[in-house]
Amino acid sequence: MKLADAPTPALVLDRGRLAANCERMLGRARALGVGLRPHMKTLKSVDAARMAIDPAHGGIAVSTLREGEYFAAAGLSDIQCALCLAPDKLGRAAALLARAPRFSFFLDSLDMARAVVAHARETAAPLRAWIEIDSGEHRTGLTPDDPVLVEVARVLADPAVVFEGVATHAGQSYGATSIEQIRAVAETERRAVGEAAERIRAAGIAVRGVSAGSSPTAAHAASAQGLTELRAGVYMAGDLYQAALGAQGMDDLAVSVLASVISASPARGPERGPERGHVVIDAGGIALSKDRSTARLPELDAGYGRVMDIAGEASLGDLVVEGVHQEHGEIGGPGPLPFERLAVGAKVRVLPNHVCMTAAAYDDYLVVDGGEEIIARWPRQNGW
Amino acid sequence: MKLADAPTPALVLDRGRLAANCERMLGRARALGVGLRPHMKTLKSVDAARMAIDPAHGGIAVSTLREGEYFAAAGLSDIQCALCLAPDKLGRAAALLARAPRFSFFLDSLDMARAVVAHARETAAPLRAWIEIDSGEHRTGLTPDDPVLVEVARVLADPAVVFEGVATHAGQSYGATSIEQIRAVAETERRAVGEAAERIRAAGIAVRGVSAGSSPTAAHAASAQGLTELRAGVYMAGDLYQAALGAQGMDDLAVSVLASVISASPARGPERGPERGHVVIDAGGIALSKDRSTARLPELDAGYGRVMDIAGEASLGDLVVEGVHQEHGEIGGPGPLPFERLAVGAKVRVLPNHVCMTAAAYDDYLVVDGGEEIIARWPRQNGW
Repeated sequence: MKLADAPTPALVLDRGRLAANCERMLGRARALGVGLRPHMKTLKSVDAARMAIDPAHGGIAVSTLREGEYFAAAGLSDIQCALCLAPDKLGRAAALLARAPRFSFFLDSLDMARAVVAHARETAAPLRAWIEIDSGEHRTGLTPDDPVLVEVARVLADPAVVFEGVATHAGQSYGATSIEQIRAVAETERRAVGEAAERIRAAGIAVRGVSAGSSPTAAHAASAQGLTELRAGVYMAGDLYQAALGAQGMDDLAVSVLASVISASPARGPERGPERGHVVIDAGGIALSKDRSTARLPELDAGYGRVMDIAGEASLGDLVVEGVHQEHGEIGGPGPLPFERLAVGAKVRVLPNHVCMTAAAYDDYLVVDGGEEIIARWPRQNGW
Repeated sequence: MKLADAPTPALVLDRGRLAANCERMLGRARALGVGLRPHMKTLKSVDAARMAIDPAHGGIAVSTLREGEYFAAAGLSDIQCALCLAPDKLGRAAALLARAPRFSFFLDSLDMARAVVAHARETAAPLRAWIEIDSGEHRTGLTPDDPVLVEVARVLADPAVVFEGVATHAGQSYGATSIEQIRAVAETERRAVGEAAERIRAAGIAVRGVSAGSSPTAAHAASAQGLTELRAGVYMAGDLYQAALGAQGMDDLAVSVLASVISASPARGPERGPERGHVVIDAGGIALSKDRSTARLPELDAGYGRVMDIAGEASLGDLVVEGVHQEHGEIGGPGPLPFERLAVGAKVRVLPNHVCMTAAAYDDYLVVDGGEEIIARWPRQNGW
């Protein structure tokens, strides 16, 4: 089947671009002399994971237990849930560990460390935990100088559990506006988690893993010294915000939303001037998400997504989805709309602002490889 | 099971509030002397539809063909897809009609009217179509004075198809900031679709249905004269934006997101001042959506949602989700955070800005009835 015949809205994944993005990041990790742990929170697909996994490392990261269960069912064993869990999730974590022997998760408090050890002792499930470090995002995690850090590590240095190490994510890299800024954040990230590891080691506790990363910092870090692994995820798909940050090029963006024009009229649309007219597609706020990340960068603001032709090329001009309703997207741009190419039934592809949010509305990908031929359908695992 | 024992994040639906919201809108329709066609785009649940359907009307509206197929499989027959379809969806529409004999959809162009008649003649499927009227939202639809309107009706006045009538949605009611303004939009909506019907009738073509509505206009319209049905959907669940508009009260909001605290520390959160600390829940941008509707009304801006206690009450103070990452939500508010009630593992309920967007991330509802006991689990149908 071709994209022209696919029901819309649908999520399209370009396998060639995905492969190139995976290769580039694996090359980065090799050059930095560190293992890569691809974060599957964006693509949530085992087919994509197989292309992203670093043969020198073998592990992945996930953002929900449901993802972890999906990848464990597919036979993966080193799965890091890169998120602090609520204590009532420990039973599910233990069940997951029984299928994926290197399943691990984050925590950032003494109470939770104690709960993990208590659960492991009661159930004999050797739970594996990382201490999350706050390297400047101020979301979750202990700062490297937090007085409680070594105490948490001491609790986890218990034979009933496995203390995996320290992990951080410098999410503030998404707020950077230049490659120099991203590089500085990467250095802060590396030093923070390294400092945390050193403090714990100085107390006589072994720290095996030192995990750090975000797609922007992984793409631009000057050094990975002291790290045992880099984590990054959105780079596999890319999106307009990653491109705006300079973390990826527009030709690297591998995921788009296939949509159909459902209403078009050169003669209407009074608010834009009657000569302007309107074009509406069947991809709205649910199909694209309401993420407006690119609005932070006014000159690159792409509304709710950039409108490409069905081949994924920019031949329609500088068009964006200006407005969304639940199931409607309104196309606009600086010049006149190319009505002759946007009649009712015409198909377009919309590049998302933030692919993690957009992809979450879909159960699978229509996989293409540069062209318009659908070569596969890959499932993805949403939910919690 | 109780909410305290449910895995998070999860979507909670209060059946008592839903029932009251349904009764109130049915009462409105009765008082206005018009049938109610509940729009299921928000709740997408057959259990909810059964409570919302007007016995004097019997029909529902949906926003996707997938929803239509779901409700048809559940035995409903009068299903209006309140959206213009792309022409390649006509085969699926015909298949749906075979299960739901009063399945209908919108169109707003001569080309599409001709495509519908041609498809119906070829396949002998008596497709049923409404002409969508633009009553001021300027999204889709023909304006009542559009020169093409009567011509479209004439194409649909063909024995191969059923011309259902004219339908409109004054979505600009969501931009109103007072009940007076909503009432004025309701009047514009009613007059626009009525005018369109009269123009078509004046050309000797029968117009059976005259359909109009949005939750705000349905709640406040002074008259339904000339209408055969009112359409509204979000009123069943309600959300912070509906409450901000004055279309519903805070005690009417029937849907919330159950979330757990996964990180909390009175001592951290430097950006908010070290004395402020932080509380993070496991409901982020996917679990809550990135909808920021309430930001339009600065004094009522609820961030990404308002934080209630596990019983759905406001006992935690004036807390909101200030920021979201993919799977993290950061709680904030004007005063000090009540850390003693927000330890790791504590559960809260978050009222959404825009429930249609938030609910779309979930496959089902945990149904409660005023308390914390889960009395049922209702599926919902996402996707296209």
